[in-house]
Amino acid sequence: MKKYCFGIDVGGTTVKCGLFSTEGVPLDKWEIPTRTEDDGKNILPDVAETILAKIAEKDIAKENITGIGIGVPGPVNENGCVPCAVNLHWGYKDIEGELKELTGIPVKAGNDANVAALGELWKGGGAGARSMIMVTLGTGVGGGIIIDEKIVPGYHGAGGEIGHVHVEDAITDPCNCGNCGCLEQVASATGIARLAREELAASDEPSVMRGREHVSAKTVFDAVKEGDAVAIRVAERFGLYLGKALASFSCVVDPQIIVIGGGVSKAGPILLDFIEKNYRKYTFKACRETDFALALLGNDAGIYGAAKMVC
Amino acid sequence: MKKYCFGIDVGGTTVKCGLFSTEGVPLDKWEIPTRTEDDGKNILPDVAETILAKIAEKDIAKENITGIGIGVPGPVNENGCVPCAVNLHWGYKDIEGELKELTGIPVKAGNDANVAALGELWKGGGAGARSMIMVTLGTGVGGGIIIDEKIVPGYHGAGGEIGHVHVEDAITDPCNCGNCGCLEQVASATGIARLAREELAASDEPSVMRGREHVSAKTVFDAVKEGDAVAIRVAERFGLYLGKALASFSCVVDPQIIVIGGGVSKAGPILLDFIEKNYRKYTFKACRETDFALALLGNDAGIYGAAKMVC
Repeated sequence: MKKYCFGIDVGGTTVKCGLFSTEGVPLDKWEIPTRTEDDGKNILPDVAETILAKIAEKDIAKENITGIGIGVPGPVNENGCVPCAVNLHWGYKDIEGELKELTGIPVKAGNDANVAALGELWKGGGAGARSMIMVTLGTGVGGGIIIDEKIVPGYHGAGGEIGHVHVEDAITDPCNCGNCGCLEQVASATGIARLAREELAASDEPSVMRGREHVSAKTVFDAVKEGDAVAIRVAERFGLYLGKALASFSCVVDPQIIVIGGGVSKAGPILLDFIEKNYRKYTFKACRETDFALALLGNDAGIYGAAKMVC
Repeated sequence: MKKYCFGIDVGGTTVKCGLFSTEGVPLDKWEIPTRTEDDGKNILPDVAETILAKIAEKDIAKENITGIGIGVPGPVNENGCVPCAVNLHWGYKDIEGELKELTGIPVKAGNDANVAALGELWKGGGAGARSMIMVTLGTGVGGGIIIDEKIVPGYHGAGGEIGHVHVEDAITDPCNCGNCGCLEQVASATGIARLAREELAASDEPSVMRGREHVSAKTVFDAVKEGDAVAIRVAERFGLYLGKALASFSCVVDPQIIVIGGGVSKAGPILLDFIEKNYRKYTFKACRETDFALALLGNDAGIYGAAKMVC
């Protein structure tokens, strides 16, 4: 008898939905809009409606569905509740209780970054491993820690919040979190752009990055591939910050693999080179051979990880 | 029907042994010498013999024993094997297999620092919590990470090796691990003595620590309690290194409580003051209220934690 599960990834503008076999084969994938108006009160009913419609469309018996996994942008506690999720306009919400009530199917909720990490462990860059540190380099720096194939959510829902590790005393302007000198301020897409502006201002050395209106992380890594010396210095600084931080994290949880994802990771394997050499220099000797990989699932990591939570 | 378990803590000179009820009540406690000669081949047979003798002495039925937990000074993999344990003169050893063969009782093995952390979570400074970072400040800096009441052993057996997190670029002499600038070099008993020598050499400021042949971590914290300004600067530096490092670790695993043990922790609550204020300054806002406590079980933490692994 075939078993099914749903993986739902709630974002600020769309809800990504997936129907999977419990072996992790994607059977269907679709999106609905996230209706954040009225304090986001329609979001879970909309999710329930689209799931029930899919079950009817596919003519699946409810007893063959192991559950609904759902990732949301906010801290999720052990009972599947969020104290608040700003992007969804939610205050306190019992996600698991509400969605189970609406669908009659067991529900497991998690933080979206952690859930995406679990997806990459299941069917992405970390497939085959049982423990992983996932780093998502986007506008910010997100992360997720997986131990024994399970998310480490953290007592305050802050497990994997590695973007907010303090790495630089010299930074005096605040991070979005309120602290100064966070990893996110030097290793995210915006952080890499910051480092590029600093390096360009520090000398008159020629660089293909000069004279552009906007220097992005992509500009930097494109220039690195052309052998641009200033861009390489930027990438070296980025790699030192992130590699050193990951070296520390390995002394804490010693994962089997470290997976790098997010928009910045589109730079490809060259990105890993800058991170890995610093990682291997600074980490404890037992962790020196830890594997590194790029994330593979892109925006689908969330629905995979959500499904994995319930199968 | 009462259930029993054994907790064994193998050290380089003695093996500490405990008989516990499965509720964690200590029923008997004793020691045997650790015979490290002949590649330590007698160690496990000696442990088996003393356990079987205790079972006979107490007239306990074997079926009422849930198991034997054993902590050893070396990395222990998921199958209960160590690749090597230098202090015991062991090469590769299948601890769980051998000791089960010798006793007919199920065995669970773990690294001694991790096992002691589990003991503190069960019946010590972390009692009542489900997740914890334990820091042991002795000659070195050890540690253990507990998530969901379970040890995080790490893929290479390096889970909780927080003494070897890189914290200081300016240190150029190597740590015991081979790297330079490890937390252990500034936050262990010997690390605190290093900081004291540096501060004493940096000025002529009067200090009760001057003129002594040997300045230890105890000298420093005794002087702090007398209001000695140089000693307070040493404690501030120690607290900055350790507090900042712990702030990072909370962004990774976000534990419910952080427990500080080891010889240095005999300085008492004043030690926590120096650590906590820096922790709270540097950590992610969600983790700012994480509890801190001193370890309570001293040298017994190992037998408690070992017993907890099998009950």
